[in-house]
Amino acid sequence: MRVFGIDPGSGRTGYGCVDSDGTRHHLVTCGAIVAPAKAAFPDRLARIHTALTALLAETKPDCVVIESVFHALHARSALMLGHARGVAMLAAFQSGAEIFEYSPAAIKLAVVGYGRAEKTQIQQMVKLLLGLTAVPSPHDAADAVAVAICHLHSAGPAAGAATRRAPRQARSWREYRPAREARRQAP
Amino acid sequence: MRVFGIDPGSGRTGYGCVDSDGTRHHLVTCGAIVAPAKAAFPDRLARIHTALTALLAETKPDCVVIESVFHALHARSALMLGHARGVAMLAAFQSGAEIFEYSPAAIKLAVVGYGRAEKTQIQQMVKLLLGLTAVPSPHDAADAVAVAICHLHSAGPAAGAATRRAPRQARSWREYRPAREARRQAP
Repeated sequence: MRVFGIDPGSGRTGYGCVDSDGTRHHLVTCGAIVAPAKAAFPDRLARIHTALTALLAETKPDCVVIESVFHALHARSALMLGHARGVAMLAAFQSGAEIFEYSPAAIKLAVVGYGRAEKTQIQQMVKLLLGLTAVPSPHDAADAVAVAICHLHSAGPAAGAATRRAPRQARSWREYRPAREARRQAP
Repeated sequence: MRVFGIDPGSGRTGYGCVDSDGTRHHLVTCGAIVAPAKAAFPDRLARIHTALTALLAETKPDCVVIESVFHALHARSALMLGHARGVAMLAAFQSGAEIFEYSPAAIKLAVVGYGRAEKTQIQQMVKLLLGLTAVPSPHDAADAVAVAICHLHSAGPAAGAATRRAPRQARSWREYRPAREARRQAP
């Protein structure tokens, strides 16, 4: 199973691709897409989209996992981050891979075993789990790798095989619909 | 000059394309992209992007104008809207047109002459200015047409010609950069 993790941001978007046979993980590639600060905002969005599209075409993951957003974010930051997440999600959808989302707490829990773990603890676990000689750099890349590992751990025994069912901790996109519509859709 | 206005939303995205010789405006097309509520969120974003890309390729506007966001929006709504605006902006950038943004108040001021005008007043002015027999429907379409007219009015006497300079009321995307960077760029 190949998982592609994304840690989106309007300035830097981290990505990390991890292979797993269900027991052992292997880092395929990781890095960060950095849009020059000089570039206009629409141009920066286009660079994120173009780079992710190329990376997804190259790595052909079974699923793409995107970090969900910290709820205490204020409106302006949420709006900016939303733009970047939107184009990242579009690239993921266009690649044909399944898309999953985990909250920062779920990622910490799945990778370190503690929902309030420090950033450095996550980075050390990423290094350990992938048998790397150093923590992936920049930190956005390490964060994205943690997102991918979170999905591998959360998917449990079925992680080795591509699964249609979202793992329990994954938030489905359906939750974003207004409550009334969600109720109408409920079985 | 041909202007393509967009009123983005994660549920419905209005669009309206208007031609102008500097004095008279003519409606080219307008409507709303409605993603089925059943569709997953990434799918809905892809539908907005695909539909806008096709419309922009067909209408070939000189510039694309996007309504900016109401500041009192709470974080969750801002995040959702950000996703939709992100993919709309990506489609605009990919079309090669210039991109402008106006606040709801600037649009009301430019179309009706009053920054706190009611929705229905804007719709009636859109109908009047374009010599239509009825208000464009749905209301997202009328809103997007108002966005396009706002740019034509704000661009002043130069509106007939494609202009490189952003009109005074337009918010440049550069404003989104952190203040320190903006200062560094200032002449």
